[in-house]
Amino acid sequence: MKRIKLVVAYDGTEYCGWQVQPSGITVEEVLNRELSQLLGEKIQVVGASRTDSGVHSLGNVAVFDTNTRIPPEKLCYALNQRLPEDIVVQSSCEVERDFHPRKCYSEKTYEYRILNRKIPLPTLRRYTYFYYRDLDVAKMQRAASCLVGEHDFKSFCSVRTSVEDTVRTILSCTVERTAEDMVNIRVTGTGFLYNMVRIIAGTLILVGIGELEPEDMPGILQQRERSAAGPTAPAHGLTMIGIVYGGMG
Amino acid sequence: MKRIKLVVAYDGTEYCGWQVQPSGITVEEVLNRELSQLLGEKIQVVGASRTDSGVHSLGNVAVFDTNTRIPPEKLCYALNQRLPEDIVVQSSCEVERDFHPRKCYSEKTYEYRILNRKIPLPTLRRYTYFYYRDLDVAKMQRAASCLVGEHDFKSFCSVRTSVEDTVRTILSCTVERTAEDMVNIRVTGTGFLYNMVRIIAGTLILVGIGELEPEDMPGILQQRERSAAGPTAPAHGLTMIGIVYGGMG
Repeated sequence: MKRIKLVVAYDGTEYCGWQVQPSGITVEEVLNRELSQLLGEKIQVVGASRTDSGVHSLGNVAVFDTNTRIPPEKLCYALNQRLPEDIVVQSSCEVERDFHPRKCYSEKTYEYRILNRKIPLPTLRRYTYFYYRDLDVAKMQRAASCLVGEHDFKSFCSVRTSVEDTVRTILSCTVERTAEDMVNIRVTGTGFLYNMVRIIAGTLILVGIGELEPEDMPGILQQRERSAAGPTAPAHGLTMIGIVYGGMG
Repeated sequence: MKRIKLVVAYDGTEYCGWQVQPSGITVEEVLNRELSQLLGEKIQVVGASRTDSGVHSLGNVAVFDTNTRIPPEKLCYALNQRLPEDIVVQSSCEVERDFHPRKCYSEKTYEYRILNRKIPLPTLRRYTYFYYRDLDVAKMQRAASCLVGEHDFKSFCSVRTSVEDTVRTILSCTVERTAEDMVNIRVTGTGFLYNMVRIIAGTLILVGIGELEPEDMPGILQQRERSAAGPTAPAHGLTMIGIVYGGMG
């Protein structure tokens, strides 16, 4: 028996998120089904980031245990033959038997992309959030830097969850205009609450249009109230970029 | 009666190209239908670039005549309300009554995007051609520069057309690695033959992998035979970037 780690990219448009649920097809479900058929064993993957419906990924991580004799590094090629074109495994390798994608220390990076122009572009509609009002990126960056460090992020957590400990650590949070009409928010942290990156994005947009000031951010954190922060930005602007594990792989 | 010029962006994935045809829905057809309903007149647009099935656009041009009293610059907003999300008109304005999108002098720019890495990325699959073999971009650039100028491009024209004069002028043709895994071919010219940019892309890819040399390009042009050039690269890698009219528009 060995434990295999997959790095999984997907276009989230057609999926009800990562985690298996009754209301529709999920990425986890497709992986379980295709791995089970490929390996002739009942496979149940464990994912690192349980992304929401519509969220994309370049590098989510999943692990599973198997008795297969397919070499671990080759497994992704065999699996990709069977997967639909909107899910592509980027790599596969063997990891330690005690490696757990959520419990082991990791640094996760997400990117929220805003198409900031007067008229939408159809070729970017699936992967960016179209927002037509001018954004003050310098102000957004000042607000973003207030989130770096260990904080209680209760104000940035969806109320549709019952998690008790809402303290998390953000290692970096940058806002950059990468093209004339594109604003990217990039957040790296060791753990995230439900909807946290999308609420951060929604709040930074309010700063960008002057409805909030960078100086308001410490107060928003202190209130520990979802209503203190901005709206939850739409899922399709968000991409899980990748996960780096501390020495584990 | 006035003549209106539209700049039209679209995701070509779901369309059988620009031009009305029996086998499926086209961009021209959707514009005709929605303009006719919006303006209460029978509208028939004339397009500049009759892009193939699956080709995308940031800036194709269409014109039509109308008696509407909607201000020309506002027309795009009213029209976009009715269009599907994969067609978005970027601007509308009045032009001279004798302006014709294909007959007036213009410089058209196309971009062919190649995702050049070992494993596909699902979020780019609709807008790039995935090609896994290493490409020598410096060689491709040298080959591309042989195409600049006025040449007989018969070797770069689909045989499924009966055009007689196959002389065209390319103003620039560049090949650039815009990211570690992205190679962009950008071509500007005053006119193009059927499939010409896709055949240029397919030929430059053969140069990139060493199956052709840059020095072969003049001979390929001289042969005036479709079989002398490389394959027609897939439509979904191609985007019509924009059209600049000489003083007209």
